[in-house]
Amino acid sequence: MGAAPHMENLPRTVELVRAANGAAELVYVDQRRLPRELVFARTSDWREVVGAVKSLAVRGAPAIGAAGAAAVALWAQERARAGGKAGESYLAALSEACALVAGARPTAVNLAWGVGRMERAACDCAAAGEGPDAIAGALFSAVKELEAADEAANRAIGAHGAALLPRGARVLTHCNAGSLATVFYGTALGVVYAAAAKGGIERVYADETRPVGQGARLTCWELARAGVSVTLLCDNMAASLMARGEVDAVVVGADRIAANGDTANKVGTYGVAVLAAHHGIPFYVAAPESTIDRSLPDGSRIPIEERDPAEVAEPLPGVEVWNPAFDVTPAALVTRIITERGTFAPSELVY
Amino acid sequence: MGAAPHMENLPRTVELVRAANGAAELVYVDQRRLPRELVFARTSDWREVVGAVKSLAVRGAPAIGAAGAAAVALWAQERARAGGKAGESYLAALSEACALVAGARPTAVNLAWGVGRMERAACDCAAAGEGPDAIAGALFSAVKELEAADEAANRAIGAHGAALLPRGARVLTHCNAGSLATVFYGTALGVVYAAAAKGGIERVYADETRPVGQGARLTCWELARAGVSVTLLCDNMAASLMARGEVDAVVVGADRIAANGDTANKVGTYGVAVLAAHHGIPFYVAAPESTIDRSLPDGSRIPIEERDPAEVAEPLPGVEVWNPAFDVTPAALVTRIITERGTFAPSELVY
Repeated sequence: MGAAPHMENLPRTVELVRAANGAAELVYVDQRRLPRELVFARTSDWREVVGAVKSLAVRGAPAIGAAGAAAVALWAQERARAGGKAGESYLAALSEACALVAGARPTAVNLAWGVGRMERAACDCAAAGEGPDAIAGALFSAVKELEAADEAANRAIGAHGAALLPRGARVLTHCNAGSLATVFYGTALGVVYAAAAKGGIERVYADETRPVGQGARLTCWELARAGVSVTLLCDNMAASLMARGEVDAVVVGADRIAANGDTANKVGTYGVAVLAAHHGIPFYVAAPESTIDRSLPDGSRIPIEERDPAEVAEPLPGVEVWNPAFDVTPAALVTRIITERGTFAPSELVY
Repeated sequence: MGAAPHMENLPRTVELVRAANGAAELVYVDQRRLPRELVFARTSDWREVVGAVKSLAVRGAPAIGAAGAAAVALWAQERARAGGKAGESYLAALSEACALVAGARPTAVNLAWGVGRMERAACDCAAAGEGPDAIAGALFSAVKELEAADEAANRAIGAHGAALLPRGARVLTHCNAGSLATVFYGTALGVVYAAAAKGGIERVYADETRPVGQGARLTCWELARAGVSVTLLCDNMAASLMARGEVDAVVVGADRIAANGDTANKVGTYGVAVLAAHHGIPFYVAAPESTIDRSLPDGSRIPIEERDPAEVAEPLPGVEVWNPAFDVTPAALVTRIITERGTFAPSELVY
């Protein structure tokens, strides 16, 4: 059942830092290069951060929320260097940059949430008469607070979720809602780490998660590094595994949760939820409050990003490819939603 | 809705032929090289045929049944060249070779069925006093009959199955139960081709079918080549597709069907069956009679081949890999079984 997980072996996924010259820079794990090598990228250019989010170098709803916030802080730094005041044209440019950052990926609401928090903070500063320099400093601090709050939320999610699992639990997860999907610690895997710290995890089964392979590349990598037993399987093998009685619970993350509990997450999550229900296995969604989009009554209007067919296969003449990156699991298939505030039936979400 | 399928564009998958010198040779499509190139391999060595089956150069339950039968015929030819009589030691060597061929892959019963037919034919000849030369000749003819019977069965399956589909059907299939999985024409895709010939197929959705990619590589290739509209999706996207109402029927093949209708097929089939039931979509299994194993009362004793973890992923330290090649779909999830004799509820299978 293993010892406590070695969280010290896991990197911080995104971290805004001050370089020796005092400039703010975002340091992030380039997740496209995992599991082969752990490489940190470093940039003070907010446009590069947008590129990193689009290319999946940084991915995972909470992580892109933090990266998006950092991008706005880097924009503010760039703008401050240009001098001037935080007047009308400043605010117009801020709004434009924020729309560009928030639009990098459409499904995860955390990105728009992180960007929105920074935009409001900047507007508040400007309204209070602060100049671009002061705004840049304030946003740096706000990003650092957001990063700390993300880790704290994940640790709380972990503690609440671990209480739902039996001792020696065998947990199936889909995609990577791990430390790599957050600033640190993870949501679905946060639950695993918290349970493992109490000796309560026998094994994690990681769905490969085609086409990008976040399960095979990222979940397996971080669990092995943390010393948690992990078995990789192809997405289409989860049904067999459940039929054999080898799964005690499914725990997944989320990219956006509607007010009624309908949950958008990595494509394939919905199928896993149907299978879990068929086999009488509890299906848990672990996500911070920032993932809940109370503006949407249900999941039908969550935008589903469709990505490049080349992610799935090399083009073959006469063959079309469908590559939606997310799907929506109806609330009826969700046993509990685990947030930093506790665990809830989907119907209890609006409070 | 498209014109009649261009069956003339599809190769014969396995074909025993006589070379210019009169020697029997098996010509087969090396399916590991599809979809990049259509390459025919050619051998008179029965051991090479066993290797081709093990390596998945030849795969698909009916196709490996025909290849296994051909391997026995090639064994008989090799033995005939060595001279001697069809006595006790001949029959012992025959039995040993047949066990080796039949053991190349454990799950598809068609392999053992094809080999067993040839073994019995050889034993009958020997009992009638025929020598190794005559036996080799008889087995060549028996393989040619089996090849013709396979295509005829598939065309009958196609006709029976096509009658189950609505006009303009959108069919989801998993793995490749196409012409490439048989001598010619296909089982599940035989149903598609027969329906398409009547203008009745709008589109086939092909599950990628990890880890070996028979859907992405083979089903897409042969459907495109035959001029049938096809869309490739990852295995984990089928649930979304069903939820969107874009699937009228699921049609799959089978590697072994127990007497009660429990069906072993490529891993992932069971999950698709659960999803089809959840969405109220009919789930059809198309297979020749040779796939039915009446010696097994149910699917619990069907041997499930586990293959090399390297098929799934490069080894990652500390990460285990589970790679079952097949799963078992309980009869309760199967709407109809389509054979060359007609279509049956699973409970009607024993007749």
